[in-house]
Amino acid sequence: MQNTPKEWSMIEKIRFRVQRQNKHNIVPLGDDAFVFKNYPGYSVICQDMMVEDVHFNLKYTSAFDLGFKALAVNLSDIAAMGAQPHYAQVSLALPSNLNESWPDDFYQGMAQLADDWRTEIVGGDLAASPDKVVVDVSVHGSCEHPITRKGARPGDLLMSSGPLGLSFTGLTALQKNLPGFESAKEKHLRPRPRLDLVKGLQTHHARVHALMDCSDGLINDAMQLTPPGGGFHIFAENLPVHTESQQMALELGMPVSDFALWGGEDYELLMAISPDDYDHFSGWHMVGQFTEKPGVFLTFAKGQEEITDFKGWRHFK
Amino acid sequence: MQNTPKEWSMIEKIRFRVQRQNKHNIVPLGDDAFVFKNYPGYSVICQDMMVEDVHFNLKYTSAFDLGFKALAVNLSDIAAMGAQPHYAQVSLALPSNLNESWPDDFYQGMAQLADDWRTEIVGGDLAASPDKVVVDVSVHGSCEHPITRKGARPGDLLMSSGPLGLSFTGLTALQKNLPGFESAKEKHLRPRPRLDLVKGLQTHHARVHALMDCSDGLINDAMQLTPPGGGFHIFAENLPVHTESQQMALELGMPVSDFALWGGEDYELLMAISPDDYDHFSGWHMVGQFTEKPGVFLTFAKGQEEITDFKGWRHFK
Repeated sequence: MQNTPKEWSMIEKIRFRVQRQNKHNIVPLGDDAFVFKNYPGYSVICQDMMVEDVHFNLKYTSAFDLGFKALAVNLSDIAAMGAQPHYAQVSLALPSNLNESWPDDFYQGMAQLADDWRTEIVGGDLAASPDKVVVDVSVHGSCEHPITRKGARPGDLLMSSGPLGLSFTGLTALQKNLPGFESAKEKHLRPRPRLDLVKGLQTHHARVHALMDCSDGLINDAMQLTPPGGGFHIFAENLPVHTESQQMALELGMPVSDFALWGGEDYELLMAISPDDYDHFSGWHMVGQFTEKPGVFLTFAKGQEEITDFKGWRHFK
Repeated sequence: MQNTPKEWSMIEKIRFRVQRQNKHNIVPLGDDAFVFKNYPGYSVICQDMMVEDVHFNLKYTSAFDLGFKALAVNLSDIAAMGAQPHYAQVSLALPSNLNESWPDDFYQGMAQLADDWRTEIVGGDLAASPDKVVVDVSVHGSCEHPITRKGARPGDLLMSSGPLGLSFTGLTALQKNLPGFESAKEKHLRPRPRLDLVKGLQTHHARVHALMDCSDGLINDAMQLTPPGGGFHIFAENLPVHTESQQMALELGMPVSDFALWGGEDYELLMAISPDDYDHFSGWHMVGQFTEKPGVFLTFAKGQEEITDFKGWRHFK
């Protein structure tokens, strides 16, 4: 779309902040489109949007954090295919009431995470917004062996790459303006995409039956991985839960498992593997098992309980 | 980002509307990311956002039109590199007050244009918006010989692929709620990306010194093509102007050249070629010439006039 002179000059500034050297670049940022030489393997693309007062609140989200997170959630989708990211494009709609350094802080946050993963910001758009900040990011990556959500088999273990419910713990602390809960707040504001696991996932790609990132909460996401007609059990006493989530559960008088089961936005990876391959994935947490029988169950040492009310993350609102 | 159950079900419906068969597809829409086999040549990517009440007004823009145009402006950027499009991703932020058929109409408009150019919608996002509609589209294309904005030489002709100022004529008619001006309204609401010219541009790529699409008005865009330190003349009496623009200029008591010089969003292509190659580009309009001397001039049969006030499209507001 058309840009205003003010936007042109801002775009020029952003270009110098984000431009990097990369021998794959053919036509740099600043032309009608960005052109690059393909990477080996397949191309992997995703795009994810964040809207003020729907996905974030500027009261407790800095411009830096927002830039960081808007890229992080997309890099997490790339990791969830077993892929490596290369390029990001960013569209940003900005109300006029933000202070002048806001856009620069935003691109600093994004560029910091991008640099961690040798990803370059190579395009996008800048627009006025009548009211709310809206940010939309697309990422281009590549991989030799894409790992999809489909392929889990009855009997497969459900594995998580890290603690679940920690982001929701952070969100709660931020919303209630509670002191402390620093790990949780950081997890919520600046989630770390699990690109560190991609190399291992590619090495063992034939052992990983299904893979996705955990953004809608364990139960909702595990349903996406479930073999057709089947179900799964969650090992309630085995859920990886951070001490700050335990503390928050105590303060709110809620079972801590609710944080792990329903809290979203952890951006950990979930995968399905055969029990025979368990030893190949040290560092992962066994959180459940897929079953031929339909239904979702919480299993405890002393019994099990069927989940029939799929409350999703809105449970907490 | 997280989606709500309502969004999940809408995403499912959209998937069935937009999904197509393509032997390059490896992992279809519906996983964490879309995976495809690369096309020959280089990859070409762009991303462009449209915000309600900044770039469009829902009073005179239907959901179908908006879907069409949001893709069209991106396909225009792909054409402006001399490339072919293959895939689009679409993020859409939707306020709750739209009627139920709105999203479906939107994706119909987008899919109609996408099908015209064998482009498939393969991802993106759907989000609630507190207030305004925001749509952001990214497109992935490919080409063997990218044609950039840089490369015009003093003496080169400035060529336009079609009428200039027609979109602004349409916008004016829509804003003033004038009857008639049907070609102009269509040009504004459903611009046609000039992908029809790409094959010819690739054939003659060595003759095309610089190329871009015209979205900010002829003067503003020609400045982007100008050789460093140089300038250009516009042949004022040669400007391709539609009869509806002439009629509008008469009604408003404005020189019709103002429409062509400053009105944006025509999404025609502009290129720089040597006068020796003029005969290879029938159908294009010669609108100006680049000069070694700096400055922007309007030349008439009986003299010339320097432009010093770069009003841009805001001139009209």
